[in-house]
Amino acid sequence: MTLRFQRAGQAVALAGMLAATATVGIAETHKFTPPAKGNMTYAVREPVLRVKPGDILESSTLFSDFYTATTGGSGYPGEVGPIYIDGATPNDTLVVKLLRISPKIDTGRSGTGGRGYAVLTPTTFTPMLTEPTPTRRHIWKINREKRTASLDLPNSQMKRIEVPISPMLGRLAVAPQGDVAIEGGAPGRWGGNMDSSDAREGTTVYLPIFHEGAYFYFGDGHALQGDGEITGTGIETQMDVTFQFELIKGKRIDWPRYEDDEYIMVAGSIRPLLDAFRIAHVEMVRWLETDYGFERWEALEVLSQVGVARIANVVDPFYTVMAKFPKKYLPRR
Amino acid sequence: MTLRFQRAGQAVALAGMLAATATVGIAETHKFTPPAKGNMTYAVREPVLRVKPGDILESSTLFSDFYTATTGGSGYPGEVGPIYIDGATPNDTLVVKLLRISPKIDTGRSGTGGRGYAVLTPTTFTPMLTEPTPTRRHIWKINREKRTASLDLPNSQMKRIEVPISPMLGRLAVAPQGDVAIEGGAPGRWGGNMDSSDAREGTTVYLPIFHEGAYFYFGDGHALQGDGEITGTGIETQMDVTFQFELIKGKRIDWPRYEDDEYIMVAGSIRPLLDAFRIAHVEMVRWLETDYGFERWEALEVLSQVGVARIANVVDPFYTVMAKFPKKYLPRR
Amino acid sequence: MTLRFQRAGQAVALAGMLAATATVGIAETHKFTPPAKGNMTYAVREPVLRVKPGDILESSTLFSDFYTATTGGSGYPGEVGPIYIDGATPNDTLVVKLLRISPKIDTGRSGTGGRGYAVLTPTTFTPMLTEPTPTRRHIWKINREKRTASLDLPNSQMKRIEVPISPMLGRLAVAPQGDVAIEGGAPGRWGGNMDSSDAREGTTVYLPIFHEGAYFYFGDGHALQGDGEITGTGIETQMDVTFQFELIKGKRIDWPRYEDDEYIMVAGSIRPLLDAFRIAHVEMVRWLETDYGFERWEALEVLSQVGVARIANVVDPFYTVMAKFPKKYLPRR
Amino acid sequence: MTLRFQRAGQAVALAGMLAATATVGIAETHKFTPPAKGNMTYAVREPVLRVKPGDILESSTLFSDFYTATTGGSGYPGEVGPIYIDGATPNDTLVVKLLRISPKIDTGRSGTGGRGYAVLTPTTFTPMLTEPTPTRRHIWKINREKRTASLDLPNSQMKRIEVPISPMLGRLAVAPQGDVAIEGGAPGRWGGNMDSSDAREGTTVYLPIFHEGAYFYFGDGHALQGDGEITGTGIETQMDVTFQFELIKGKRIDWPRYEDDEYIMVAGSIRPLLDAFRIAHVEMVRWLETDYGFERWEALEVLSQVGVARIANVVDPFYTVMAKFPKKYLPRR
Repeated sequence: MTLRFQRAGQAVALAGMLAATATVGIAETHKFTPPAKGNMTYAVREPVLRVKPGDILESSTLFSDFYTATTGGSGYPGEVGPIYIDGATPNDTLVVKLLRISPKIDTGRSGTGGRGYAVLTPTTFTPMLTEPTPTRRHIWKINREKRTASLDLPNSQMKRIEVPISPMLGRLAVAPQGDVAIEGGAPGRWGGNMDSSDAREGTTVYLPIFHEGAYFYFGDGHALQGDGEITGTGIETQMDVTFQFELIKGKRIDWPRYEDDEYIMVAGSIRPLLDAFRIAHVEMVRWLETDYGFERWEALEVLSQVGVARIANVVDPFYTVMAKFPKKYLPRR
Repeated sequence: MTLRFQRAGQAVALAGMLAATATVGIAETHKFTPPAKGNMTYAVREPVLRVKPGDILESSTLFSDFYTATTGGSGYPGEVGPIYIDGATPNDTLVVKLLRISPKIDTGRSGTGGRGYAVLTPTTFTPMLTEPTPTRRHIWKINREKRTASLDLPNSQMKRIEVPISPMLGRLAVAPQGDVAIEGGAPGRWGGNMDSSDAREGTTVYLPIFHEGAYFYFGDGHALQGDGEITGTGIETQMDVTFQFELIKGKRIDWPRYEDDEYIMVAGSIRPLLDAFRIAHVEMVRWLETDYGFERWEALEVLSQVGVARIANVVDPFYTVMAKFPKKYLPRR
Repeated sequence: MTLRFQRAGQAVALAGMLAATATVGIAETHKFTPPAKGNMTYAVREPVLRVKPGDILESSTLFSDFYTATTGGSGYPGEVGPIYIDGATPNDTLVVKLLRISPKIDTGRSGTGGRGYAVLTPTTFTPMLTEPTPTRRHIWKINREKRTASLDLPNSQMKRIEVPISPMLGRLAVAPQGDVAIEGGAPGRWGGNMDSSDAREGTTVYLPIFHEGAYFYFGDGHALQGDGEITGTGIETQMDVTFQFELIKGKRIDWPRYEDDEYIMVAGSIRPLLDAFRIAHVEMVRWLETDYGFERWEALEVLSQVGVARIANVVDPFYTVMAKFPKKYLPRR
Repeated sequence: MTLRFQRAGQAVALAGMLAATATVGIAETHKFTPPAKGNMTYAVREPVLRVKPGDILESSTLFSDFYTATTGGSGYPGEVGPIYIDGATPNDTLVVKLLRISPKIDTGRSGTGGRGYAVLTPTTFTPMLTEPTPTRRHIWKINREKRTASLDLPNSQMKRIEVPISPMLGRLAVAPQGDVAIEGGAPGRWGGNMDSSDAREGTTVYLPIFHEGAYFYFGDGHALQGDGEITGTGIETQMDVTFQFELIKGKRIDWPRYEDDEYIMVAGSIRPLLDAFRIAHVEMVRWLETDYGFERWEALEVLSQVGVARIANVVDPFYTVMAKFPKKYLPRR
């Protein structure tokens, strides 16, 4: 594949830098305004940016009136990417440190209804012979100073709710294996729309690599999201983000892994939900075996007593379960 | 049904009290040593004790060498009960306040293997054409003063693990609807083996009632248990327990509910796992509608942003998911 | 357990025979009118009849206005049984030859709606936040001479449908393991409400035995039923039945098996549906290994090419899949 | 999109015809040798052939030593396509009449093992902590005159099996919605790897259309395949095929439909298996409503009594269930 770089409007300053990265190898900070039009699939395609291990990216997720319109609107703006990581090969693991995730605008959108992403109402993939349920769109107000979000609840006794926000990114992906192009809403071995609230500031995400350059994508900021994302949306908003990229050379992983101060985590994504649980926990046992010196069945025993499981989403084309192991129970390395 | 009381060895002191409860109505404290032989099913049968609303029960779960034997042993000791609650009818809700749950012995048993309760190895109900996996039995040492448990891990780099305990009861049940007798390992609308670590000291459990007297059962202490209980066991041990019983007259619920300082919760139990999730969350939305003045779709919206979900078990005959709603977001009543 | 026989109205003639069966051992034909009140659970309880291997039973399933009432009615009449089979032990397999299954009355009932047994509308165990769907009751006319059933379809272009009947029994059970009492609607290792249209005249059913005497139950006639029984009912009607009982001494099976002229079959029952499929097919592979000299992986290979699978029910508390292997591909024995 | 036609070796005779189809509109027969290299995904890409409604295609599925090699080999050869159907739009339905499906070679390949497509052994998406199971490759001999296939079973009592063949195509697809590219092994709304043995000579397949031209793909011949395709393979072989294409203008369908002399059918594909069942049956009810004048709940009632369900596959990335309604119970039109 010949890479031709599609530069965004403000990317003029990047021109020399891009040429430089391959040769110089000094970590740089890329202030990157993504192209106005996002991608709706994860696939190998012309990168929008090229970085090297150690580099920092200051950017944002895409904006559309999806996040602000009280009616109508132009739909979800898609993902930023792909970003080509120099030196990344399928024998390596991509490391993305989530240094900053912070709302860039003052509203967030959520909603219920439709036959798409849902779990407590019938959907395209769990159809029923029932009448359709109502469709609702909510626009939350985000107070970026107080770091809260509030919503009017006109039909409820509690006429208004205000909640602290906990910004996260639903989608962090690489280009999937082979020549497939996966819809942006789908999580899997490529990462993608895992919709895990564990993807927040301070978390490091590890992704498998299926193609040279990895082809990293990101998007789908949520100011807040509950477990399962049962309406199919968190408080969806545009985010300012800062990432740092690294590679673990010569190490392959099968499923996305996360790490924060407290836990090592695996994101397993598939339907049905129990298989997502199995994927996350079997990969966690293997991680404990491979990296932390546990014998398989002793790893299983300990995980059974101290493991934490988060249901990240039960509404996307594949569901995601996070298996979480407390780092305080890992051996010192 | 005529109640004939089967008294345990030390229950002589209860004789006068039992007669008294029906007539006097003053809350009493029952120091109750259960019969040596527990029940293996939840059903309407001769009560072992009779209490009235307001009464406190000081007792323990049953002991067998299940909790101590390094090989062989006589198996799980079964549940304590049934306890007849005076005045309980199918129009009411049984309230059980878990005032104390504390290990009574110094060991806890756990283990992997067999084709019974498991999720990361084939089972009777998810059979595979594979060779059997190894069976392991572990005996944890419980330090009741330090409130820790420790286990040798001879085959792992980390040769020993020590963890703080968080005692809980896996099984809290009433007699199920009709003339069925449900195996002790099964959770459902009757409560039963929900294996939720939310059933700990300070939690209040609400159970539906299907028969006059409710017929309450309890058992299955875990010094600690991770989410999902993936080996099929927590750190199983005998527990000292103190409960207080109440009735909410004229109120019916469909599924078990829990409440602690932080959350109101619903325990949904069925296979597959997603339907357990649906049960718990639909019942939570109805709870928010009925008791807290939320309109249905606004309840759903808020739950989507602030809800917490715990995978309590994925190994029992039915799986259990806890839907948890933070009390700080409830309207003041 | 001491057996006290509860004799039905016409059972006077049985008195001497019952005494005789144990001692003489000559196969007899029992013309048995069951007690008016059926059982709603499968459990060890006082038998209504005692037979010995080789005996023939001429009887019927129970009647109630469940099968005839256009509105209201007294509900499903329950199962006939238990029938104690002399000499049956948990080391044996119970054989029930279905010699005759034929409608005894001229109507059959079916219906849609409610939150109970269904699959294309929300249920108690797959709940949704939707409005309830309509409840319908249909009374089919059964023409016993022509062996057809017909139903008016007033709201459809085709104002009436007439179909050939294919009578079957939904429920064939033994008392389940331990002291549980299973609701009549539930299929499992005990047989029960498998709702397989393969249980028709000429079929032989093999059931595991969990208690001495086996405690056989039967009921739930369907004049016709489609795969999956998607409304939760076939054309439900009272049936005349003739069975012959046998025992295979010293042979244990794990799940119910069926056999007709064309197939050997296994009924696997559990949720989710795929696990019912796994149970049926793993047990079929084991059957081919044990009784027909197949090596495991060659059995799997052949089953993959010639196997037939029937979705018997997706509406009962557990779903049932039939794995069917054509007898023409079995080795001659 | 500009169409540039990639012509196969023998396609010289097509040159004039291709130009003609758009203008003349007379049905033609295309004798088409596909490009040696197949596609591994369903997507909008440069067509290999262009046809118009009414045209007949005589071609074959692709060959590789996948079908003949006893060890090693170069893997599955991929799908033929895409074929552009003139005049096809997303408002129409693509009709593909399967006029001929017949083995082109004398061997067929099958096999067990690996962590890919399987159901009775652990897989990538239903992982277990077990040891891997053996991998087997089988090469069946196909006798094209007798229309049988035979396989040695060296490890079984029955040393050899011979079975009549029933040729089918596992994969019939259009390009899926949007800019996704779906892996060839996955079935869905686009058709794809449904692995239904109902796709045989004489069957008509109806597919939704998501892009102008439809972009039809086909492949994956099975000389025989059992329900569920439990090893992940039928008797895989290269097929000679003859199709006729039609369009139903102005009619949209949501899921693939089949029709043969006996049944109208819907193929529902998703995980878990029960949702594939739901999709197929809800779409069948809608078909009965829309095209055959049934009221919804009467359609459901009749389908519950006369419906046939086939488990087409339980091994592909999505599982497929066929809902089948006997044409003899349709109203005359």
